[in-house]
Amino acid sequence: MQAPIVPTPAYIPYSDVLSLIRDILSTSITDHDSPVHKQVVRVRGWIRSVRAQQQVHFIALNDGSCFENLQLVLSHENNNASIDFLALKTGVAIEVEGKLHKSPGAKQHIELHVQVIHYLSPHDSEYPLQKKRHSFEMTRMIPHLRVRTNTFATITRIRSALYRSLNHYLHSQGYHWINVPAITTNDCEGAGDLFSVGFDINSSKRHFFGKPAYLSVSGQLNAESYACGMSRVYSFAPIFRADNSNTRKHLSEFWMLEPEGAWLSYHDCISLAENLIKYAVSTLLEHNHTDLELFDTYVHKGIIAELGYFVQTPFKRMEYTEVLKMLKGNENNKNKTHTMPPLEWGMDLATEHEKALMTHTNNVPVAIMNYPKEIKPFYMYHNDDERTVRGIDIIFPRVGELVGGSEREYRLKELRMALTEKKLREEELSWYVDLRRYGTVPHSGFGLGFERLIQFVTGMANIRDCIAFPRAPQEALC
Amino acid sequence: MQAPIVPTPAYIPYSDVLSLIRDILSTSITDHDSPVHKQVVRVRGWIRSVRAQQQVHFIALNDGSCFENLQLVLSHENNNASIDFLALKTGVAIEVEGKLHKSPGAKQHIELHVQVIHYLSPHDSEYPLQKKRHSFEMTRMIPHLRVRTNTFATITRIRSALYRSLNHYLHSQGYHWINVPAITTNDCEGAGDLFSVGFDINSSKRHFFGKPAYLSVSGQLNAESYACGMSRVYSFAPIFRADNSNTRKHLSEFWMLEPEGAWLSYHDCISLAENLIKYAVSTLLEHNHTDLELFDTYVHKGIIAELGYFVQTPFKRMEYTEVLKMLKGNENNKNKTHTMPPLEWGMDLATEHEKALMTHTNNVPVAIMNYPKEIKPFYMYHNDDERTVRGIDIIFPRVGELVGGSEREYRLKELRMALTEKKLREEELSWYVDLRRYGTVPHSGFGLGFERLIQFVTGMANIRDCIAFPRAPQEALC
Repeated sequence: MQAPIVPTPAYIPYSDVLSLIRDILSTSITDHDSPVHKQVVRVRGWIRSVRAQQQVHFIALNDGSCFENLQLVLSHENNNASIDFLALKTGVAIEVEGKLHKSPGAKQHIELHVQVIHYLSPHDSEYPLQKKRHSFEMTRMIPHLRVRTNTFATITRIRSALYRSLNHYLHSQGYHWINVPAITTNDCEGAGDLFSVGFDINSSKRHFFGKPAYLSVSGQLNAESYACGMSRVYSFAPIFRADNSNTRKHLSEFWMLEPEGAWLSYHDCISLAENLIKYAVSTLLEHNHTDLELFDTYVHKGIIAELGYFVQTPFKRMEYTEVLKMLKGNENNKNKTHTMPPLEWGMDLATEHEKALMTHTNNVPVAIMNYPKEIKPFYMYHNDDERTVRGIDIIFPRVGELVGGSEREYRLKELRMALTEKKLREEELSWYVDLRRYGTVPHSGFGLGFERLIQFVTGMANIRDCIAFPRAPQEALC
Repeated sequence: MQAPIVPTPAYIPYSDVLSLIRDILSTSITDHDSPVHKQVVRVRGWIRSVRAQQQVHFIALNDGSCFENLQLVLSHENNNASIDFLALKTGVAIEVEGKLHKSPGAKQHIELHVQVIHYLSPHDSEYPLQKKRHSFEMTRMIPHLRVRTNTFATITRIRSALYRSLNHYLHSQGYHWINVPAITTNDCEGAGDLFSVGFDINSSKRHFFGKPAYLSVSGQLNAESYACGMSRVYSFAPIFRADNSNTRKHLSEFWMLEPEGAWLSYHDCISLAENLIKYAVSTLLEHNHTDLELFDTYVHKGIIAELGYFVQTPFKRMEYTEVLKMLKGNENNKNKTHTMPPLEWGMDLATEHEKALMTHTNNVPVAIMNYPKEIKPFYMYHNDDERTVRGIDIIFPRVGELVGGSEREYRLKELRMALTEKKLREEELSWYVDLRRYGTVPHSGFGLGFERLIQFVTGMANIRDCIAFPRAPQEALC
């Protein structure tokens, strides 16, 4: 087994690492009357709200380190007369010094009695985020400020926590992180429309890279070449789609996790995806419970219970043909509640079909296997039936396809036939064909859309609210 | 303190996770004569070399999980006559089954006595990587296959190990991973030339994003907006430079780690960079020693000792003005060995100056602080002397500038003046100015070029050999 990460060594901490609110709130209180610590503490953050009473100001301070605010108590008597109490407003940044006390209030167990304000930045003009709930449409127009709201600070912590646990799980299973290029000269993966790069209309040297180049729609082909040497690899990087689609599930730029494993079958690939996602979700339930409560209360009631059920329930595996049969049966059912678009063998599932499938399985994710070869790209393993390939899509409740993958066509002859069938030129992909010419091995992999995973765990309706700076057609602020 | 990562839960492992060579080689041997394990093991990998004796074939098998090969012993008698011994060649993939024995050889302590070959992929044509050393120039032409050489498999493991420890350190210090957009509509950061995106010459709707868009040269401005709400954040993502420069230190696409911390001064920022890099290098020395030995033997003799010295020696901090004085002094020294380009106050250091600086400090990294404002971007904190800004570059031996950062100009009035001085329009950056209008706080951050760090720890001369698929002017294979 790989050695575990060594503990962080005790280098001299940089001078101004003061207390994070997260650390302060985890302080235990033993004595009800005396200050928790004899020495003074300094905290810094942004004011979430101010409540003024006759002799005292209560301030809820947040520094992003955790969901909870720290209550600051500014007694008018104890404080220097020079404090400008009118400047204490939502959004203002302050640095204060004082002692921690047990709080008599029900909302918090600890509070800071402020002695000195060391720093205060009054607003230059009216602050756009007041102490009230703002619509997601409104905060989407100010992506540089929305991280100061509870929802987006929490999304940010959840993104970071999932990033950490996904990476951790894959490392623990022997996967090496690799980088795949964002700029690619392959234009034939068929995963979506492409953005061109390096074509300068004002320059005589027209192609910066010597030939047409694009932003990558998937790192898979490159990851395959690394799996055929390192056995287990994954990339985690931004991916680009130039499709002109404006839906609540699509972005022009998003993060994709792409594991690729030599010697994995498509069934192993489903197991890897299942174990990986369940590990990430269970870690989140354990360490970010307070963060998830926000979504359970305001965004999607019952999501914590849903995620608990998700972690404990095995995914279903169904053949594409079987899924079709089931959906067709549903169609003839007089009690059907959905009106579904037509669906015949050889067609891809529409959103309504995915919803019906989730109703059928009582929201248990389904790995659909062995798709008609006509609706899948050239690189998937061709089954003996000559009709299907070993593609897999894993359908999740609410978000639809969260994972898409396949067992790859590792046989030289069959790959060449597939290229011909899809009218692709082997010369353009000769390097990829090389992987089948030399030391070829069975291998599989998948792509997991990171922002859709954020949607799944938070219940957020629009994927634009699951990424810091969303990019979509006609939309790129900041 | 943040809770530590929970151990990976024991989900049912997917069916075909067989033994990695890394795990097999860490098996301890207690009995010299009997097999180490009674049960058979299966291993899979690619043949690195074959040595045939009269009654036995010795195969060095590698699966990428570690530097070392596993020795396979194929006795001609014990094996099925149907084995095609001629097909056993460098680069061929095989899956074998057998028992582990203590090896009588000096080179390895354990070997696998093969009973069955389950899978073997003979080459379709002549394998380009034979058992000999290939030039880096040659392997650069086959980036899809070079990971099957010792050097690039080792680079890949080192990249993954550094990715892991850099992430780990920042998490342990309360930094949240954030994503910054690769596609940006800011074109004024001045960090380099830009690639245009979303401008379709064939389409009537000329700007996909509704306005000119580019590939990002730095995530800093976006990261700043998140630091002003989350306190401590970092991004780790690909970054793009369209400069037409072909040097051994530049790429058109590379990975950059960008921490940004609220309330950090530029001195804190240097400490963060120093502690972070030292943690990563010391972790590497501890866990990837065998990998580093390859570079110590074949690429840069003495690099392990150099890295050990690096970890133990505090960085130097020098004012820009002080550095200049020192270099000018050197210039007048009759014993000077370098011929240096001219250097006057207000000029940037050239590579030759950086080398002279490293000679002066005996290869201890130097953080150069407080640069003339004319040679630095608009966003750096302006010192009272009205001539300098709080920019920092950290110069490393061999690779030059590994880290570039600054304390940011957080004061509204001074930022506006800087925009005017640099002839930038405030309207274009109004969102960035907003960060100074509402709840502004002192903050600092830096960018660390990941591939230059790989150069630093491996001693590799060309940065193209420190990334899987290098992109440079007129260069984008696979």
